[in-house]
Amino acid sequence: MTKRLFALGWSAFFLVGIAFTSAVSAQDLIVEKQVFSMPSLTTENGEVIKDVKVGWEAYGTLNADKDNAILICHYFSGTSHAAGKYTPEDEKAGYWDAIIGPGKAVDTNKYYVLSSDTLVNLNVHDPNVTTTGPASINPDTGKPYGMSFPVVGMRDFVNVQKALLDSLGIKKLVAVMGASGGSVQTIEWAAAYPDMVPKAIPVISPGLHTHPFVIGMLKMWNAPILADPKWNGGDYYGGEPPLSGLSSALQLVTMNALYFDWAENKFQRAWADEKVDPEASFAGQFQIESFLDGAGAARAKISDANHFLYMSKANMTYSVADEIDRIKADFLFLPAEGDLIFPVSLSEGWAAKLREKGLKAEVVPISGPFGHVNGLFKIADVADRITAFLEE
Amino acid sequence: MTKRLFALGWSAFFLVGIAFTSAVSAQDLIVEKQVFSMPSLTTENGEVIKDVKVGWEAYGTLNADKDNAILICHYFSGTSHAAGKYTPEDEKAGYWDAIIGPGKAVDTNKYYVLSSDTLVNLNVHDPNVTTTGPASINPDTGKPYGMSFPVVGMRDFVNVQKALLDSLGIKKLVAVMGASGGSVQTIEWAAAYPDMVPKAIPVISPGLHTHPFVIGMLKMWNAPILADPKWNGGDYYGGEPPLSGLSSALQLVTMNALYFDWAENKFQRAWADEKVDPEASFAGQFQIESFLDGAGAARAKISDANHFLYMSKANMTYSVADEIDRIKADFLFLPAEGDLIFPVSLSEGWAAKLREKGLKAEVVPISGPFGHVNGLFKIADVADRITAFLEE
Repeated sequence: MTKRLFALGWSAFFLVGIAFTSAVSAQDLIVEKQVFSMPSLTTENGEVIKDVKVGWEAYGTLNADKDNAILICHYFSGTSHAAGKYTPEDEKAGYWDAIIGPGKAVDTNKYYVLSSDTLVNLNVHDPNVTTTGPASINPDTGKPYGMSFPVVGMRDFVNVQKALLDSLGIKKLVAVMGASGGSVQTIEWAAAYPDMVPKAIPVISPGLHTHPFVIGMLKMWNAPILADPKWNGGDYYGGEPPLSGLSSALQLVTMNALYFDWAENKFQRAWADEKVDPEASFAGQFQIESFLDGAGAARAKISDANHFLYMSKANMTYSVADEIDRIKADFLFLPAEGDLIFPVSLSEGWAAKLREKGLKAEVVPISGPFGHVNGLFKIADVADRITAFLEE
Repeated sequence: MTKRLFALGWSAFFLVGIAFTSAVSAQDLIVEKQVFSMPSLTTENGEVIKDVKVGWEAYGTLNADKDNAILICHYFSGTSHAAGKYTPEDEKAGYWDAIIGPGKAVDTNKYYVLSSDTLVNLNVHDPNVTTTGPASINPDTGKPYGMSFPVVGMRDFVNVQKALLDSLGIKKLVAVMGASGGSVQTIEWAAAYPDMVPKAIPVISPGLHTHPFVIGMLKMWNAPILADPKWNGGDYYGGEPPLSGLSSALQLVTMNALYFDWAENKFQRAWADEKVDPEASFAGQFQIESFLDGAGAARAKISDANHFLYMSKANMTYSVADEIDRIKADFLFLPAEGDLIFPVSLSEGWAAKLREKGLKAEVVPISGPFGHVNGLFKIADVADRITAFLEE
């Protein structure tokens, strides 16, 4: 078990969707990426986005009554690849493969589980991701939108997912679940379409709004992109993208998403190059420093800086606190120990508020050394609780 | 009490020395800034720095036996202004004025309390600060050192303080104490000069080394300076300094040094400009965003970017873990609840290690909504414990 945890720990090198992986299974679930298109979406702000496309994938089979679907929403830097592999040769499976599949906590022999890429998904250069955002071509101009793309929010993300479900004839879900930014969409779903969402599982969640301290954090994540001269007001699609600023932004995400124990286990105070003493010169680095540089640069290559800013914006503006009375779902909150972004106390506080409204809301913390991303790496530890909640 | 706390909360606008203030007292302690000079300092790395100057100040009177001195070491972005005012008209007193003064926890009727600016102090443009670092003129060239200044560490900071004490004829201290980076110097003192340090009070402390996760944090603090084209490899003294990068760096310090409760109490989810909705456009900001911009810019004006990088380096490289057997002091650790930089568990872990070595080491956590800076804003809450420890 310890060995496997360490292997998972190393996958934190890539702090997003396709790279958060679980161990290789003997019976791999093979999944197919699909693309959902909408001629246009009218946003909550009243803007019209034409030709909206998002990628999606599904595990299991939709039954004849179309009432066995569970929707999985992805996190800030994630993708729709929640489980399975595209080919048996794939090195890695989807980020929640430990709990989604035949006979697993979210049992695909029973449920039809689906997940879609959000609008403004970060991973624009990942061939398995389809999204619509500032890097997309504006059909009216034939050029990328850049910062002229309309500001979108979590409700808009949810409305695209709703249109996808409509297209499949799904009128009611068994549950919605998601980690971090995916938990935000989960709760947004419960507020937006209460009759469709009887059960909600927000994992590593802020609760019903984004806390002002996290708004500050998101501002700091954006700062290196805005400061990179290559960002150029968001107009860089003809030239060099602001990879350096984007790398710094992704490094901040990594640091906020992990925790002391992870760094202690992984690096101690080891030097990046054992021949170059960090005490003697600025050329000398500690291992965690070079790790962050490498991880940030790798992630930046498949991400888009403007999409990052739009995703931050959607997270900053998230609040359904004043829609709490609309919500009908039962809640299972799964916060994580040592979470520096959404401490356990946030789930506890919001669960208490939901119970005051007469709803069921349970909180089961996940332990582990990874801080926020315990909600990904250690999700198997609460597998039984998830199964029980789905079957209650 | 609540009112006073809020007033203190607002002073977090300026996250360093002279601006961390306590409430105005009827009997102000008036202090005089002095300058200590050394013809040269040989660093632990074997480099020679000529013409070293640091500012210092003292409260109380050194007795005839010169055995009533307590040394206060300042934090990362702090200065030697720990208590009192320079003139009765000063708006603000030193950052620990709540516990240092006549009849206070560190009683200046009894003790001679002194504090000096460190090498590479951040606040180069504060008229009350004197420091030697990359912004200083290299006597050999007649030009500022920039990044040619030797890398210095906490032991070098301590050795300058030791020379100051030598010049005053102080052979043994009653105690050394300091917050955050000041606690680092406190423990470095206990390891470097064990016979001079019978008591040590590390407040909001990492313990005997800087944790690898904090090394990562410090790297992220440096990043915006290094990314600012105006930084120019540290060579900007003839032109425009990298204020934008330095401001971002200081904003990251602010965010890591505070906590969720502070943001909740101070900003909630209020808009920066009530006419500009953050949901509708990128021009719309939340209050915490504009606060960070304002605080960062104000601090950047009196700080120096290269000094920031050197101060980070000194914090990254700090470790006396392998000198634990030299230490003779009794310890009173005062960590702070909600501290995102040095969690309470670090003080507890290191105190246990010191006790294993047969030393006394007590841990008394400070409560409050301010995270790390509870160690400054809420220090009065542990005043009695400090007094008792000094008199034990």
